[in-house]
Amino acid sequence: MSIKRIQVAERMSQAVIHGNTVYTAGQVAIDAPGESAAKQTENILARLDALLAEAGTDKSKLLSATIWLSDMGDFNEMNSIWDTWVAPGHAPGRACVESKLAAPQFTVEIGVIAALD
Amino acid sequence: MSIKRIQVAERMSQAVIHGNTVYTAGQVAIDAPGESAAKQTENILARLDALLAEAGTDKSKLLSATIWLSDMGDFNEMNSIWDTWVAPGHAPGRACVESKLAAPQFTVEIGVIAALD
Amino acid sequence: MSIKRIQVAERMSQAVIHGNTVYTAGQVAIDAPGESAAKQTENILARLDALLAEAGTDKSKLLSATIWLSDMGDFNEMNSIWDTWVAPGHAPGRACVESKLAAPQFTVEIGVIAALD
Repeated sequence: MSIKRIQVAERMSQAVIHGNTVYTAGQVAIDAPGESAAKQTENILARLDALLAEAGTDKSKLLSATIWLSDMGDFNEMNSIWDTWVAPGHAPGRACVESKLAAPQFTVEIGVIAALD
Repeated sequence: MSIKRIQVAERMSQAVIHGNTVYTAGQVAIDAPGESAAKQTENILARLDALLAEAGTDKSKLLSATIWLSDMGDFNEMNSIWDTWVAPGHAPGRACVESKLAAPQFTVEIGVIAALD
Repeated sequence: MSIKRIQVAERMSQAVIHGNTVYTAGQVAIDAPGESAAKQTENILARLDALLAEAGTDKSKLLSATIWLSDMGDFNEMNSIWDTWVAPGHAPGRACVESKLAAPQFTVEIGVIAALD
């Protein structure tokens, strides 16, 4: 099975495709640091859409998602964006837990596993 | 490869099957909120058994498990249930870390990846 | 698809191979408890190298890594070791979040998913 890496850097790749499975790095709101959890979630999901497209797939093929919130008090706000983004009938398995993230300006992080086909 | 989703809702599916691999959502003790870590773990593992059965597999085919405890002080209590549940000789890879969960009445959450065959 | 378990114990296996995919348990610095984050990371990555070799693969085939730090203040120190360990051009997807670990003498934990081929 082939391995294809997307946006490879020294520390991590933003996504790695192995056979028919795509693993993304945890995405933070690079374009919305320090903004509300809703704004950060919007930015993260837009970035995930682009990353999945670059990998040759889309959100209708999500298998699993892990969501880290630095403050679980943002749960409802994050979900208000997440719930409208998910492709109806194609929701992934999901876990959402509280963990501080690498930098305090980021309060939401989402990583996914998706299918290519 | 096919994708089959189990117990699909707006926010998440409880499990997603992709080819021969099953990804579950993080399971909490829906039937034992606010109870001890041992009782919650028992409930979660019973729910995982049912979910794996619905997916066409069982705990002897676990590949990986992630366990989140809202208080690592519950580590031994959770393990006392986990260790007797695991199918001897078929233990998955596992990580257990401390993270607060989505609601305070839930202090244990477990998500797994399993094989179909 | 076959399932092969490596270093199976009652509680967990240290790695599980399913088809062409390897899932490791979260690795802590068994040989460097209580030492600096850098020393612990060095030990963990050496242990991962050995585990991947036992599974029949190596760090050039990493797909995804999850890193838990008990104190995000160790982020740069952990990365100083991680960045030099990663096989250039073969970095995995990665998420790094703060979670307390099972025992206070361990402040870094890393679990990976890798390809066999």
